[in-house]
Amino acid sequence: MRVGIDVGGTKTLAVAVDDGGRVVATDRRATGRGAEAVVDGICAAVHAVLGDAPPGPVGVGMPGQVSPGGVVRHALNLGIGSVDLAEAVAARIGVRPVVENDVRAAAVGAAALLPATDSLAYLNLGTGVAAGIVRGGMPWRGARGAAGEIGHLSVDPAGPVCPCGQRGCIEAVAGGAGVAARWGKPSPLPVAEVFDCADAGDPLARSLRADLVRGVAAAVQALVLTADVELVVLGGGVSRLGERVFAPVRTALRAAASGSAFLASLDLAERLAPVPAGEPVGAVGAALLAGSPVGVAPGL
Amino acid sequence: MRVGIDVGGTKTLAVAVDDGGRVVATDRRATGRGAEAVVDGICAAVHAVLGDAPPGPVGVGMPGQVSPGGVVRHALNLGIGSVDLAEAVAARIGVRPVVENDVRAAAVGAAALLPATDSLAYLNLGTGVAAGIVRGGMPWRGARGAAGEIGHLSVDPAGPVCPCGQRGCIEAVAGGAGVAARWGKPSPLPVAEVFDCADAGDPLARSLRADLVRGVAAAVQALVLTADVELVVLGGGVSRLGERVFAPVRTALRAAASGSAFLASLDLAERLAPVPAGEPVGAVGAALLAGSPVGVAPGL
Repeated sequence: MRVGIDVGGTKTLAVAVDDGGRVVATDRRATGRGAEAVVDGICAAVHAVLGDAPPGPVGVGMPGQVSPGGVVRHALNLGIGSVDLAEAVAARIGVRPVVENDVRAAAVGAAALLPATDSLAYLNLGTGVAAGIVRGGMPWRGARGAAGEIGHLSVDPAGPVCPCGQRGCIEAVAGGAGVAARWGKPSPLPVAEVFDCADAGDPLARSLRADLVRGVAAAVQALVLTADVELVVLGGGVSRLGERVFAPVRTALRAAASGSAFLASLDLAERLAPVPAGEPVGAVGAALLAGSPVGVAPGL
Repeated sequence: MRVGIDVGGTKTLAVAVDDGGRVVATDRRATGRGAEAVVDGICAAVHAVLGDAPPGPVGVGMPGQVSPGGVVRHALNLGIGSVDLAEAVAARIGVRPVVENDVRAAAVGAAALLPATDSLAYLNLGTGVAAGIVRGGMPWRGARGAAGEIGHLSVDPAGPVCPCGQRGCIEAVAGGAGVAARWGKPSPLPVAEVFDCADAGDPLARSLRADLVRGVAAAVQALVLTADVELVVLGGGVSRLGERVFAPVRTALRAAASGSAFLASLDLAERLAPVPAGEPVGAVGAALLAGSPVGVAPGL
């Protein structure tokens, strides 16, 4: 039995996956703040999904920069600057987990849960924007673990200033934090509120929505024109707006292709897919990665 | 003995490479127009570099879209709409060549000729702009052979109109044809003339040069933030301007990183390298690909 855990900013979701690749147990709990609380939550979740089953390989998807050895850095929204998560968890449960960046783990999960594709990018539209790229079921980390970090590609030199110092980063126009900052009104769900107000005709909301759509379309185009993945799967909080986001993004991609036989031949709009509804892609991906330092083919 | 041939818009360069990976013969001839003339040139070049040596595997790097089976499409500057090049050459010389896109072949050659890197992008700055990506010595084609086609990423919605219909494509600001069109004065070497006139203080030339530098920097950033290749090797005609292009591109990359610990950690400017001086990377890459449908590791 493999265990996969997706540590999110607010909740930690764990699954136990049997040898047939079926999810046989799940656990959902609030994510604590700081390394110790996060490790506590991971260990409790492992015990919760395993019950009396013998411990098996464990995989963990974590925000931030994750080294191949399992050291997590800059998981700022968890209050973690740096922690050797693999070591800390191993000391507690006696099993050394495979730790992967959460978006990359979700990409592996999405690749396993979707109809067979050789290559896929999982584009996470959350507080920030980043993608995980999978080829042949293997996560692609790149030379320095930065593969898929497209949030800081600038697509408009006259765009809004990004906390990174550039202007017009994809994350600044399409990330939840960027939209919230530009919207400027406190809201539990700023992007949804912006879309609602745009529907109601609010000019600022309309321009923020248009920028978000352009940013997501640019992210899809960047992923396909660079990595040429078969599918770009949209996930993350913003993607839960469903067709309210997908439809205008497809329209923008078709508009970009309308003048170019080359772009048209790439069928960008048709290569966009939503994350499988209700599937815990992050936790399943982490389970698939468990026991393998370099990732495993989809399906156990 | 392997033969590698790089079919360029003006010249066809062929090399014979021995089992030790050394170039033992080269042939350089003008490229003809149209499929028949191109095939004639390829076959003549094979005989020229082989001399009395027994025929071995042959690899050909061609502009345009190249199918895994060796069909070449849209090689417009060669006057070729579509041709089964592998078949046409096999019928003439009795050896079925491996045919690859010329930029991708050059990427394989650059990877073989540079100090060992697991991943590399060869960014061709010529009439157009495109990159070839190599991992572990293997060219990465992507789902539809479009991997590395970053020329049509838009980096400025207010930028110049690209023939593809978008505005501000990297190719429109950093490709030789785009620069020539915006310069508007007939010149055998428009980009060099623009750089000379910029040095002399011409305002239009200065703005075109600034746009070109921004476009190249954006291409490097897109390749690293998406594929995270270890090295980005600059080649093609524009790159022959050397430090006149490299220095300002490095400055632009450092400026982008100055506000961002994440971008700074990627050392974008330090990951930029010129194509090995005087090395026929395209022909050598084609030779390395010869005899293998999926590419071979660098070094024979």
